[in-house]
Amino acid sequence: MEFGWSWHIEWQSSYEFHGHHIDQVLEDVTTQFQRVMVAKLTRFGKSLIIDGKVQSTVSDEYIYHETLVHPLLLSLDKPKSVLILGGGEGATLREVLKHESVNRAVMVDIDQAVIDFARKHLTEWHTGSFDDPRTTLVIDDALRYVEKTQEKFDAIVLDLTDPIMGNSSYKLYTKEFYEKLSRLVGDDGGIVTQATSPSFSLDTFSVIYNTLRSIFRKVSASITYVPSFDGLWGFVYASNKVTPSQLSPESINSLIAQRIRGKLRYYDGETHSMLFSIPKNIREKLSSEKRISTESNPVTVPA
Amino acid sequence: MEFGWSWHIEWQSSYEFHGHHIDQVLEDVTTQFQRVMVAKLTRFGKSLIIDGKVQSTVSDEYIYHETLVHPLLLSLDKPKSVLILGGGEGATLREVLKHESVNRAVMVDIDQAVIDFARKHLTEWHTGSFDDPRTTLVIDDALRYVEKTQEKFDAIVLDLTDPIMGNSSYKLYTKEFYEKLSRLVGDDGGIVTQATSPSFSLDTFSVIYNTLRSIFRKVSASITYVPSFDGLWGFVYASNKVTPSQLSPESINSLIAQRIRGKLRYYDGETHSMLFSIPKNIREKLSSEKRISTESNPVTVPA
Amino acid sequence: MEFGWSWHIEWQSSYEFHGHHIDQVLEDVTTQFQRVMVAKLTRFGKSLIIDGKVQSTVSDEYIYHETLVHPLLLSLDKPKSVLILGGGEGATLREVLKHESVNRAVMVDIDQAVIDFARKHLTEWHTGSFDDPRTTLVIDDALRYVEKTQEKFDAIVLDLTDPIMGNSSYKLYTKEFYEKLSRLVGDDGGIVTQATSPSFSLDTFSVIYNTLRSIFRKVSASITYVPSFDGLWGFVYASNKVTPSQLSPESINSLIAQRIRGKLRYYDGETHSMLFSIPKNIREKLSSEKRISTESNPVTVPA
Amino acid sequence: MEFGWSWHIEWQSSYEFHGHHIDQVLEDVTTQFQRVMVAKLTRFGKSLIIDGKVQSTVSDEYIYHETLVHPLLLSLDKPKSVLILGGGEGATLREVLKHESVNRAVMVDIDQAVIDFARKHLTEWHTGSFDDPRTTLVIDDALRYVEKTQEKFDAIVLDLTDPIMGNSSYKLYTKEFYEKLSRLVGDDGGIVTQATSPSFSLDTFSVIYNTLRSIFRKVSASITYVPSFDGLWGFVYASNKVTPSQLSPESINSLIAQRIRGKLRYYDGETHSMLFSIPKNIREKLSSEKRISTESNPVTVPA
Repeated sequence: MEFGWSWHIEWQSSYEFHGHHIDQVLEDVTTQFQRVMVAKLTRFGKSLIIDGKVQSTVSDEYIYHETLVHPLLLSLDKPKSVLILGGGEGATLREVLKHESVNRAVMVDIDQAVIDFARKHLTEWHTGSFDDPRTTLVIDDALRYVEKTQEKFDAIVLDLTDPIMGNSSYKLYTKEFYEKLSRLVGDDGGIVTQATSPSFSLDTFSVIYNTLRSIFRKVSASITYVPSFDGLWGFVYASNKVTPSQLSPESINSLIAQRIRGKLRYYDGETHSMLFSIPKNIREKLSSEKRISTESNPVTVPA
Repeated sequence: MEFGWSWHIEWQSSYEFHGHHIDQVLEDVTTQFQRVMVAKLTRFGKSLIIDGKVQSTVSDEYIYHETLVHPLLLSLDKPKSVLILGGGEGATLREVLKHESVNRAVMVDIDQAVIDFARKHLTEWHTGSFDDPRTTLVIDDALRYVEKTQEKFDAIVLDLTDPIMGNSSYKLYTKEFYEKLSRLVGDDGGIVTQATSPSFSLDTFSVIYNTLRSIFRKVSASITYVPSFDGLWGFVYASNKVTPSQLSPESINSLIAQRIRGKLRYYDGETHSMLFSIPKNIREKLSSEKRISTESNPVTVPA
Repeated sequence: MEFGWSWHIEWQSSYEFHGHHIDQVLEDVTTQFQRVMVAKLTRFGKSLIIDGKVQSTVSDEYIYHETLVHPLLLSLDKPKSVLILGGGEGATLREVLKHESVNRAVMVDIDQAVIDFARKHLTEWHTGSFDDPRTTLVIDDALRYVEKTQEKFDAIVLDLTDPIMGNSSYKLYTKEFYEKLSRLVGDDGGIVTQATSPSFSLDTFSVIYNTLRSIFRKVSASITYVPSFDGLWGFVYASNKVTPSQLSPESINSLIAQRIRGKLRYYDGETHSMLFSIPKNIREKLSSEKRISTESNPVTVPA
Repeated sequence: MEFGWSWHIEWQSSYEFHGHHIDQVLEDVTTQFQRVMVAKLTRFGKSLIIDGKVQSTVSDEYIYHETLVHPLLLSLDKPKSVLILGGGEGATLREVLKHESVNRAVMVDIDQAVIDFARKHLTEWHTGSFDDPRTTLVIDDALRYVEKTQEKFDAIVLDLTDPIMGNSSYKLYTKEFYEKLSRLVGDDGGIVTQATSPSFSLDTFSVIYNTLRSIFRKVSASITYVPSFDGLWGFVYASNKVTPSQLSPESINSLIAQRIRGKLRYYDGETHSMLFSIPKNIREKLSSEKRISTESNPVTVPA
């Protein structure tokens, strides 16, 4: 039969879904926190799927991870210490470690099972970054870690689960949490967060943007299309001194040449220009957003 | 999300499919012959899926396997030796071995990997029947085995893949093959074959029926609904002396009590009456069928 | 593209669905009560779909309608007056009018728009039965009609929406309602109700059966596979004097010849035998059912 | 049931599909050329679907149509006459007519039935542009029209069906056809074509780009995400004198203010910057493309 029969169906809402054919399920287990599957999708190849959402695929994960990490780190003045919250696949860590200035990368993830899964199945993602001497791996809740750590960081990268209605990840997208992070990075550092999909949760994206603007003086947003996410994805970068959107394509190319070891597949000066040019319809939404996410009135996305 | 995201989609045709939600994929491998998956379906529990078709599920496999085996064996005079062609899960073997008269059961399956899979995952199906002292397991092509064996059998049970267009299983549904089997069972024995779905391939079902009528003197068909097959399933029983449809519900109940060890969950006198009462629309099709399946003009079902 | 793109997806539960390809949508409107669509399904041809459920299709509606009507009417002593509750397509009416003894058929349906729809699109279903001089069409709520009518009937045929959680049709499957009907048919009459699917709501089927047994002295159930319903369908027949299951195949054939005008495509003596032979697994459920549906504790099926 | 049951399933390939829930089918007919449906999609509202592909939806058609039309027309020196090939909905025409310099717009579409459909159902798309005194509507094959017309145009907008394998639209994406167009626009004019999806047919996109580069001296590509197309969409602009990618965001804003009457919802200077900044992974593909589409060796997309 020419018709595929083993499918990952990703629901963007109750009236919208995307079907990806599965060539083979490599492992499918339920950890203490979530159902975790590694499968070979016909279109995207090896893919990590958690609780029904494609987290990343071997064929396009670089788009998300390069866009998350490099604009922030290049906009800062040679960051040395980086904190990663989430990012269990190890690919955010991989991109961070490409920066020659970085001499310490602390990665905090809640689910040991996902890390083990990544070590076993996702070698193309982490490519040894878990074992880099600069890496410190911590299994902990991100909020708890942030509240108790005494350490300061030059950059913080938030590679977290969406603020899903009904679980506690929403706390990691609130004003209160960003205030804590702002103390950890000080005036010279910066943070970046994935900010959900402008295609499927535009309100959430713009509230995250506006919430960060209530804490940091320089805030900019980028948007890119991620094929395996079936739509646009948003990111917000925040600091008190600098912001990536002020950098020209030429300076980005120059900074990449100076500070990054290893090849980038997606990010360069022209891509930077695309990422930070926000189309009018979304730009109007961002600039008119008034709402701020707080612990008592948090922004969320449907489960 | 209340919506399931991991689905087995079974295509009955290019314009018809059935979706079964998968709770967990236990194993998913491609053997020399086919893609074999064991998964827990939300509705049916543990299930064997081969090349996109649900083969049997822990919650309703007894319907198919009891209907395949018992009408034939009870209609014969205390069969001692039984040949099973196909039946890799071991459940057909299990039902055959419930007959106290049986002292030899030879099972021939082409795919060692499926047997290994069954031993590992499908213990509820075979329940030890592979290790019964009366069992002989042969890994071979069914046609080759039938052509070379010198042994006679009292009954032959054909638990085979559908005669799918494009592979060679169609040969096991032809006049030529049934002639070979008729020599193996002689005048006192009988055979039964699964005969595809009257819902999705009524022509195939009726051609199998008519083909067997061209070789054997007594032929009858039964039909039952198998939930995990999404429709009706057909069986044809053939011998030269007796046929199950001539037995009354009362005699079936009495034969079960005398000759079968262990509980039946589906088959008894009243079920027998249902199985062999063919509804008018299908009966008219069976009785008017003229076509006979031969090696040069075989009946098939679409892949 | 060989893949179909316009689909009716029928959910049997949140973890099970069936997809039917649509060749053409003929009309798709929302009445006061429900969304009503007439579409040509590739497999089944012209079909009536209400609120996401295939109600009947031109290619297999006769299975349902013949099974609903004829066993009851043939078991009664030449019924003259028949009340039909529901049955908007007009096919139940069509089957009732095939009985030569019937001189009055009252059909009560709640939704004028469905009747109009049927008149316009479903001529193959009603074939003029709406305009038969014996027919009286009433647009009303079935419960209200039953409560206020002064008329007695020889037979009542309940061709109603399933007792869906959250709407009021559940009242038409309760002891209280059946008591009202028992007064309308008296000791010589009988009733039949569609009783949902033994495949998808076995509890509901067996509770309806048991509820009728609490009111009537003779109750029997039939089951048939309806292709466009994706599973088995159940019916329960109740009266104080007679019941179809006591009739032999031979007497059914003889009664059909004597009393029915026009051809039956599905129902005859052997089909009767199949319909009323209940397989062991379902029979055990029916015979052990203790629950009775009442207005205060009604049986329902999920929406 | 909270689950939707009426779905448009759009296949991007045999292993990838997107499901859009349909609230209502307004009309579904098969013309001489194609199956044409207007339906209300839950996510996108009123939508035109032709042969299983969403052509445009009321909620995001402006993204496609503004990106197709304005970069070309603003890059040219006040174009007066514009030829539109395809564009049956009338929205491309609508955008063209927003340019004050335009005094003649000829639109050529092959399917009168689609135009009639648009007039009846898609008023939000054409908003009267069919009846604008500057408009001339021609029902004809685009290739035939181009071959026989004696008229010259300042701009040609190709809003055509994809070059689908197996029909003849592929001829409208070849070197031979572009040569004909180049003669129609002369040295001062320019053309733009939709160029399929960089997400689903990157090869086709880059071959179209490269083919135009073999005919015109100035060629640039833009890419945008169109939600209802489930991915990125590409466009190529070609002329001998100017190209939109050389215009700065500031000059775009100024040209819009001077030359366009009516509001744009998507396109402005910053959007322009995003559209013409091609991400590295796609840019490398475009710049290394060697293939040229010709009548004898045309580029196509799978049906």
